[in-house]
Amino acid sequence: MAEPMSDQNERVAICPGTYDPVTNGHLDVIARASRVFDRVVVGVVGQAIRKQPPMFTAQERKGFIERAVADMGLENVTVEIFTNLLVDFARSHGATAIVKGLRAISDFEYEFEMNQLNRKAAPDIESVYIFAAAEYSFVRSTGVKEMATFGGPLDDLVPKEVAEALEARLRRD
Amino acid sequence: MAEPMSDQNERVAICPGTYDPVTNGHLDVIARASRVFDRVVVGVVGQAIRKQPPMFTAQERKGFIERAVADMGLENVTVEIFTNLLVDFARSHGATAIVKGLRAISDFEYEFEMNQLNRKAAPDIESVYIFAAAEYSFVRSTGVKEMATFGGPLDDLVPKEVAEALEARLRRD
Amino acid sequence: MAEPMSDQNERVAICPGTYDPVTNGHLDVIARASRVFDRVVVGVVGQAIRKQPPMFTAQERKGFIERAVADMGLENVTVEIFTNLLVDFARSHGATAIVKGLRAISDFEYEFEMNQLNRKAAPDIESVYIFAAAEYSFVRSTGVKEMATFGGPLDDLVPKEVAEALEARLRRD
Amino acid sequence: MAEPMSDQNERVAICPGTYDPVTNGHLDVIARASRVFDRVVVGVVGQAIRKQPPMFTAQERKGFIERAVADMGLENVTVEIFTNLLVDFARSHGATAIVKGLRAISDFEYEFEMNQLNRKAAPDIESVYIFAAAEYSFVRSTGVKEMATFGGPLDDLVPKEVAEALEARLRRD
Amino acid sequence: MAEPMSDQNERVAICPGTYDPVTNGHLDVIARASRVFDRVVVGVVGQAIRKQPPMFTAQERKGFIERAVADMGLENVTVEIFTNLLVDFARSHGATAIVKGLRAISDFEYEFEMNQLNRKAAPDIESVYIFAAAEYSFVRSTGVKEMATFGGPLDDLVPKEVAEALEARLRRD
Amino acid sequence: MAEPMSDQNERVAICPGTYDPVTNGHLDVIARASRVFDRVVVGVVGQAIRKQPPMFTAQERKGFIERAVADMGLENVTVEIFTNLLVDFARSHGATAIVKGLRAISDFEYEFEMNQLNRKAAPDIESVYIFAAAEYSFVRSTGVKEMATFGGPLDDLVPKEVAEALEARLRRD
Repeated sequence: MAEPMSDQNERVAICPGTYDPVTNGHLDVIARASRVFDRVVVGVVGQAIRKQPPMFTAQERKGFIERAVADMGLENVTVEIFTNLLVDFARSHGATAIVKGLRAISDFEYEFEMNQLNRKAAPDIESVYIFAAAEYSFVRSTGVKEMATFGGPLDDLVPKEVAEALEARLRRD
Repeated sequence: MAEPMSDQNERVAICPGTYDPVTNGHLDVIARASRVFDRVVVGVVGQAIRKQPPMFTAQERKGFIERAVADMGLENVTVEIFTNLLVDFARSHGATAIVKGLRAISDFEYEFEMNQLNRKAAPDIESVYIFAAAEYSFVRSTGVKEMATFGGPLDDLVPKEVAEALEARLRRD
Repeated sequence: MAEPMSDQNERVAICPGTYDPVTNGHLDVIARASRVFDRVVVGVVGQAIRKQPPMFTAQERKGFIERAVADMGLENVTVEIFTNLLVDFARSHGATAIVKGLRAISDFEYEFEMNQLNRKAAPDIESVYIFAAAEYSFVRSTGVKEMATFGGPLDDLVPKEVAEALEARLRRD
Repeated sequence: MAEPMSDQNERVAICPGTYDPVTNGHLDVIARASRVFDRVVVGVVGQAIRKQPPMFTAQERKGFIERAVADMGLENVTVEIFTNLLVDFARSHGATAIVKGLRAISDFEYEFEMNQLNRKAAPDIESVYIFAAAEYSFVRSTGVKEMATFGGPLDDLVPKEVAEALEARLRRD
Repeated sequence: MAEPMSDQNERVAICPGTYDPVTNGHLDVIARASRVFDRVVVGVVGQAIRKQPPMFTAQERKGFIERAVADMGLENVTVEIFTNLLVDFARSHGATAIVKGLRAISDFEYEFEMNQLNRKAAPDIESVYIFAAAEYSFVRSTGVKEMATFGGPLDDLVPKEVAEALEARLRRD
Repeated sequence: MAEPMSDQNERVAICPGTYDPVTNGHLDVIARASRVFDRVVVGVVGQAIRKQPPMFTAQERKGFIERAVADMGLENVTVEIFTNLLVDFARSHGATAIVKGLRAISDFEYEFEMNQLNRKAAPDIESVYIFAAAEYSFVRSTGVKEMATFGGPLDDLVPKEVAEALEARLRRD
């Protein structure tokens, strides 16, 4: 009924994203977050707004992440689809932080802008940023899909299952 | 004797810096970190390497921060001078994270570089970044000291005590 | 008949933009321009080219700015809709300068490029740039509309009338 | 005795700098400022703070600019050495604006920071920025002196007189 | 039958692009590449992916470049349309390098990302970058077309033939 | 007596630097250059100007590179110390290109500036840029020396011999 006492001191962070599909860069940031916080909830955006429809369904994207974090042995990470506001999703988990990956200068400017706006909307939830590892600093979902379209190697860019799904999907199309 | 059990689940973060002197931008980042983590240890660099000697002694700099965080009611923040490696200082507190403020693109590049090097030296401690509030995004200790030299107003830039110390110091010189 | 002599020495600047809708960042730049120049003409773009249609009509956008600059007591600022070339609009007012706000690095690159092209087209009219105040450096019309969509607070971002119009419009849609 | 009435409506701008020595990039910005404002006062910094001593004396640097602006026929530009605060120098001329040239991203960040600090010190004087022409966007006094040291061609970088002075000075040393 | 011996040692580079239409900035980079390498093949992208259809056909775009490089006397430059993968096109010419022009910071980030991905796909072909001349650093095909739409001068931006074609095309539309 | 005929068609590039000491990032760029050009001459700056004296002598720095390129099997790479102008050094080798590594935005701005100046001094020699591999994009000689001072691991940053020399040198001091 009541939440266990140990949970009361838990520090929870949310890792939000579209993850269409998850890349090794995303997973690197999630793994780092899982070492900084007690519990990490990966929030998969259920409804893309103003963007073209995602290549994979929210369920597929969630599955990719769940199996990858299991393979990595990240026991304090769970994955959920959310369709409400990020801030409300974060509050429903008692999160104190939203974790974002930072890769490039253009990320920096966008995140600075979003961050200042979000603070007005939800001053109780702080966004913190983690640098992706240098070897993933150039990996974007968009670039990976383009790579797959051209038949390029996806080995170091995404988990094996995702690579196969991308190849199957793009062959199927 | 033994540490209390509650401590075992504590999430501790280090906010390192020279803080010569602390600015409202620094304090903004410290306050945000104190909401994300259970306990924050502000680490004042005791020995400046390769830079000119600081304007204030480590003890003075520590005192400024201690009184400012007390005024802000940040009860889970303590301040310490450290002279060993940051990573060793962090480990001695059981910290899982080092928190740095991010303000500008040039910070971004420098921190990216430092971050990648530090990960090689201490893969168990993660650096996370918090954006300073927009209204502090232009406040550097260096600029504040320059402002004080010219007799400019320091009100919104540093705590009152620091403003007075800067004026006294620069008058004395 | 003849224009009054005082006008002959007048220094006029144009502040062009789509202003869909005007933000406090825009108004900050307009107010600063009104202190540097004798007269400022805010030029509201009447026809958006290659972009999606604006949320508010040119008349609505003009009205928002007129009432805001009146509230701010900026007596040397007028607002006009223009549908011809910016350069021709500027010349028709005897302007010597076009004033643009600068916020971010990405603005910088875009404005540099536009500036060099415009100089070829109209070497007699100079573009000058004014930094928005730090606390508005993250406010874009796009972000404000997104914020309104999510029901976030708009208080410090746009004038009260604009906040209400945004809420009414987005509720109505 | 009394200033002539026409002066009362004059819009005056200050172009401050060390100008050690003036480059064609500086002169490009000064010329553009002279078209936007009624009168431009080039302010040559008389005392370098925290930098190495300038290569040319303030009188020499002033002379280079005076002869260059005369050659360019810029009749509303005068040159003065100032040793007080820039803001006080600007006020003593009734200036409403300080004009700075913008060339690169690193300029942008530095100027943003200085601008926000200066606004606190002198809210009545606005800084405005003008892009140097693309062909001068890479010309810094430092680079020019380095070029001269290596005997490289200085033709398009500085006025003829300055080129000769640089060559004489560096030969003499 | 056999390729001549001199060819065996030839260093070939590819200059790929959409060139819709070629600008003086493109031609500046092509000319510089032609001095660094023995032979340069300008590769005109035959099929635009995910972009709006080009203004000029691939044949027209190829023709513009061919006549411009002939006018410039660049004897070791040829122009071809390619519809296969860039990497395969490069290999079919025995190229060791792909040459790209760099103008702005945003180019830099995009090219870094593409470069790292391409290296995974084709480790045998290296991308090298050449800065466009400063006076072309602001010239993009997109900006040129916009300029033409407004009837602005195109003289220094594109070859004369291209300027006329742009004016004819935009008049015709 | 006469140079062999095969040399006449050779494409030669210079990789200049202080290399104090050489890092794996430098070696990555040198290896890439060696695949693009027929012959690469690594030019070790013999006299540091305006910088603090290097940690290693020019002979030591040359030796580190020679042994590293031998280990990497780069047969068309030689290493030389030069004390004259880079441009004269390049001409003495019949080089058509100077190759520089690009890592960060700040490199980009500096190199753009240098490049435009160098073109005035030596229009016959082109500078081309190669991105370091992502995993070396954060490795600077300065950072490596700092890392060594703190006893951090140098394995992936520099060749083994250099790591040992750094440790010996910093122990000795």
